[in-house]
This record gives sequence, structure tokens and C-alpha cells, in this order.
Amino acid sequence: MLPTVEWVCGENGSLMPGKIRMIDQTLLPGELRFIETCYIEQVWQAIKTLQVRGAPAIGVAAAMGVAANVQNCHSGTTDELLHAALKAADYLASSRPTAVNLFWALDRMKHTAKQNIALAPEEFKKRLIEEALAICREDTDMCKAIGRHGAGLLFDGCSVLTHCNAGSLAASLYGTALAPIYVAAESGLKVSVFSDETRPLLQGSRLTAWELMRAGIDVTVICDNTAAQVMREGRVDMVMVGADRIAANGDVANKIGTYGVAVLASYHKIPFYVLAPTSTFDMNLEHGGLIPIEQRASEEVVCGFGARTAPENAKVYSPAFDVTPNTMVAGIICEKGMALPPFNESLLRMTS
Amino acid sequence: MLPTVEWVCGENGSLMPGKIRMIDQTLLPGELRFIETCYIEQVWQAIKTLQVRGAPAIGVAAAMGVAANVQNCHSGTTDELLHAALKAADYLASSRPTAVNLFWALDRMKHTAKQNIALAPEEFKKRLIEEALAICREDTDMCKAIGRHGAGLLFDGCSVLTHCNAGSLAASLYGTALAPIYVAAESGLKVSVFSDETRPLLQGSRLTAWELMRAGIDVTVICDNTAAQVMREGRVDMVMVGADRIAANGDVANKIGTYGVAVLASYHKIPFYVLAPTSTFDMNLEHGGLIPIEQRASEEVVCGFGARTAPENAKVYSPAFDVTPNTMVAGIICEKGMALPPFNESLLRMTS
Repeated sequence: MLPTVEWVCGENGSLMPGKIRMIDQTLLPGELRFIETCYIEQVWQAIKTLQVRGAPAIGVAAAMGVAANVQNCHSGTTDELLHAALKAADYLASSRPTAVNLFWALDRMKHTAKQNIALAPEEFKKRLIEEALAICREDTDMCKAIGRHGAGLLFDGCSVLTHCNAGSLAASLYGTALAPIYVAAESGLKVSVFSDETRPLLQGSRLTAWELMRAGIDVTVICDNTAAQVMREGRVDMVMVGADRIAANGDVANKIGTYGVAVLASYHKIPFYVLAPTSTFDMNLEHGGLIPIEQRASEEVVCGFGARTAPENAKVYSPAFDVTPNTMVAGIICEKGMALPPFNESLLRMTS
Repeated sequence: MLPTVEWVCGENGSLMPGKIRMIDQTLLPGELRFIETCYIEQVWQAIKTLQVRGAPAIGVAAAMGVAANVQNCHSGTTDELLHAALKAADYLASSRPTAVNLFWALDRMKHTAKQNIALAPEEFKKRLIEEALAICREDTDMCKAIGRHGAGLLFDGCSVLTHCNAGSLAASLYGTALAPIYVAAESGLKVSVFSDETRPLLQGSRLTAWELMRAGIDVTVICDNTAAQVMREGRVDMVMVGADRIAANGDVANKIGTYGVAVLASYHKIPFYVLAPTSTFDMNLEHGGLIPIEQRASEEVVCGFGARTAPENAKVYSPAFDVTPNTMVAGIICEKGMALPPFNESLLRMTS
């Protein structure tokens, strides 16, 4: 497994002068190329154009972007560096206006900067880099913890169906939905995966298949409409998906198509698990019906891959995600363990 | 609605010398271009390369191909014309080796040829053209009959979800699953349609959306994985799909994804109707489990639109169709009316 985002130290192995290295996900699965930069404008661009994607990965990249920007200030007092850090954070916050993890990571960097105003300039720079690395390390630790808790559900020879990409590429490492599969594989279990290609943007075939194949895990790509058939053939032992947001009652907002998979899993009596960090839990949200559903541009559906696939002016309905009701969820696995129904109680326990 | 396949008469309005005109479906939805030909090689090519597709449309095109070929023989006895007709039929039968309607139409042309050996050469030619036109007309009549029977299920302002293309483009005119919608529209009913794009070959967005938009019918393209969400929003009153083959017990083989739609419809308590001619009923087949499932090439899934959408050597599972169990089917509408459960009895009545 390759780090999605990492800090590359200077020649002498010291933190400074360092740079950020990210997998350019827009080139996958055709080409594995890295973006290496210490310029904040390029980090902004990478987030904006989805070269780096997935809430945790974006947060890590942005934090490193702030650190790199301050590192680049070759003169100035710590006060001036603080000003640069705050400006950098505000600038990066404008790259993806709805990414909660992005704001969270940037706020943490701003907070760290404000707290360390007493340090000498070089120490201040180093402190910000360390904070970005801590965010990255904590993300990896959280993913690994989800992986360990989820791996208990897997058994040798089992088969998991997943939707979209909630894997290593969406985080610093391991990911969420795929984390148990990586953990199980590391301990020698043979697990195979069916990956819904996930229209319209095909994260399942482009990214999930790519990272699982790279890790030597058996993965089969299917069209989204084939999930029912694979389940009917008895070839799916469980479903594991990520989440964008989880309401207090356990309703789960995730990539469009997740709800359909949940209905199919329920009909075929296949357990449906959601894997996501507690930061995804929105305990102020009573139920999933309160989550507004973002609409995507029709072009993603009708001219996504170089060819127009519907008539000009065809009407398209393309919601970005859907909400799976808690009644279809067998368990929600976070870094603290697995929450079971009734979720109103179990999620509260996880977050308090 | 444009005829998918038709015979174009000579300048003076007489049947001979005539030619075949077909919509080139490989250019849709980008361009509406017709293939006009009286050469059998071009008809063979059109069937082979899916310029004409859909079992009934293929049958009509092949029958006209035989007639055109015999018409082109500028000298010779009726015996020689018979020989040409039989040879033409055998040649066209090699274009799509598994198309049942193709063989049926060609056998009928061969039979007609053999029966009319006593005619003078010019009369013999005319007779074959007339037979091809009869096959075409009967197909249209059959589709219209399905349309009339199915239209009784529709009501003003209702919304139908369909999968793949079982419309006018798959037949001479009207089609099967879409026929009720055309009939209802002709009588002034306002019906709107959700069209699953239908991966991997996108017949829903390329063809169904195209023909419905041309006919002025409100259609919205959705990714296959969005059907569940549209149903959940209460925006689907019924599902109407075609069929490749229907077993004696009412199990329905149709384009991959149909079974998933049926499960979703069942969960959301939305009636699921199948529309297909009695020629699709296979009363020798006890149940759908006996239908072998053809596997398609992985390239259709992973490099369908000019761009590669999965890693090289990715494993792909791509069955061509699936089987929907009779328990999920509210009714099967054929040219003779609607068969209701228990289908073992009602389908037998329709075919006897």
C-alpha cells in the first residue's frame, strides 16, 4: 500500500526543507504519477481538481500545505509566519467549500500556529510540520483501528462487496471500508472483493480495483447493476461501505447507489456494514431525512469518458449520494469499535 | 416515431426496384443517419455490427435482405431465384448466430420461396418482397397490440421506470416495453419515464432516451445505481421492461440489471411489468434457472467510452442478462393481453 499523501524530508533526513508527495488520482488507473510540491498553489489545485480526494486525504494534504507555505518564508518574525499560516489556511479552505475534514484540519493548523507564537521562527516552522505529520499519523492510526475492529467480521475465503472508494486512496493509508480487508490480508486471510464500478465517476473500477490489485487482493469489477446477480449467486458474504455522514439514529449518507446495495443486501439476507470514523457521526442530526442531497452536473453522467452517451439536452437526475436507513445496517464500525442497533444508544456511547 | 427498418419503393411507387432503409444505431444518439441498401452484404454487416439490433428489427432486416438479393438477380429462371433466396437466407443466418428471431424470419422467407416456385420470375421476386413487408407489418401490429394492452395500466401524469431498450429501435416500430407509453401518448396521456442508462452498453441513455425525446415524451436518464433512490422518493409508479426469454413459470430473462430493478421495485411496492411477444415465451423451459447465462467480454465494462476505466488485467464479471423470478412480476403483457400469476396457467392460455 502506498501513502496517498506524505511529507518527504530533506536530503539529510530532516523535516526541513521538505515537500508534499501525493498520488495524482486523476491519472489512475492508467498511470501512477506523484505530485511533489512545496507550493501551496499546487496543493490548492490538487484538492480542487480531485488529484487528491477523500475527506481524510484532503485534510492531511491541506495541513501539509499550510506547513509547507510557512516553511517557504525565508525571512520574517514568528508574527509574520503566523500571519502567513492563517492566510494559507484561509486560501486552502476555498478549494473544496463543502469538505468538513478540510476545515477541521485547517482549523487545527491555525490553532497550533496561534499557540506557538512564542517559538523562534525556525522552531515555529518545524512545529507546524510536526502538527501536519501528527494529523497524518492519527489518520492512519484511526484507519488501522477501523481495520482491526472490522477484520473480526471477515473469515478465510470470504467475499466482500463494496461500493465507491473508501480505501487507502481516500485517506492517508488503509482507508475505512477497505481497512479490514487490508488488515485481514496482512494476517494471512484470503479475502476476495466485488467492487461496484460506481457510476458516474467510476471510483470503484478506477480506484478501488487499482489499490486492491496493487495490494495483491483478489478483486472483481462489476457494473453497479450486477450487484444483485452476484448476491443471488451466493457469492457475497457481506457488504462493506464507507460513509459521508451518519445521523444520530444510524441513517447513513454515502455515495449514490449505496442505498440500492443495502436494499439488495437486505433482500438476500447479507449483512451490510458501514465503516467510518467517529468524525463522520453527526449527533446533532436526528435522522438521515434531514441530510440535504447535493445534485451533480448531468455532464458527469452523459459525457464522462470521451464520448457522449445520451442525446443533447437529455434530462438527467444525478444525486451525489443517498441515505441508507438504519434498519438495513447490521453494524457501524469506527475507530472505537462496532456500534450495533439500536444506534441511537450505541453511537452516543462511541462519541461520549 | 421513425421506422427502424423499412422497404423504400422505387421512384414510381412500385415495390421494385426497392431498397432497405435502416437507422444506423451505432451512431445514436450523436447522429441520425440511415443505411440505404439493396445489397445483402451490407445487411449482413449491419446486423453483425449492431447497426440494426433488437430481435424483431433484426428479423425484419434479414427478411428484406433476402428479398432485395433476389430482386437484384437480373436474369434467370424462378429455379435460379429460389436457389439465390436459399443461399441468401443461409448467408444472413451467419450474421448473429444466437438470434432466434433472425432464424425464424429467414425460415419463413425460405418457406415462402419454396412455396412459390410456380410463379414467373418477376412475380416470384415481388412475392418475396411482399412476404418481408408482411413480417414487418405483423411485427408492428404485434407491438401496437402490446402497447394497447399495456396502456391500460398507465394513467395521466404517471411515471414509468424502464431498463435497457425495448422500444421502437428494437423492433420495426413501437417496441415492447415502450409501446404502451407511445400508445398512451398518442391518446393524449402525459407519461414520464425514468430510463436506467444500462451499463455496460448504455442502451438506456443512448437509445431509449433518444427515441422517447424524439417522440416528445418526458424522459430522465439515471445511472443504474440511482433507480433505488428515485423509487424511494416516490417518483416511480411502475416498472416496464422487455424480455429476452420467458420460462413456462413466468421467470424472465432480460438485460443484466433487470433482476436488481425487480428486487428494488418489490421492496418499494412498485408493480413490475414485463412486455414481450408470445414468441419470447419458452414453454419447454420449466423455470428460469435453466436459462444459461452468457458472459460478455470485460472490455465492454472497462474500456467502453474511449477511456480505460479499470486497471489493466482487472478481473471483470459481466453476465449479459439475469433472471427475474416470477414472484416479482405483477403481469406479463403480450400481443394477446396480460397474463397474471399464476403464470404456469396464464402463459399456457396465451400460447394455446
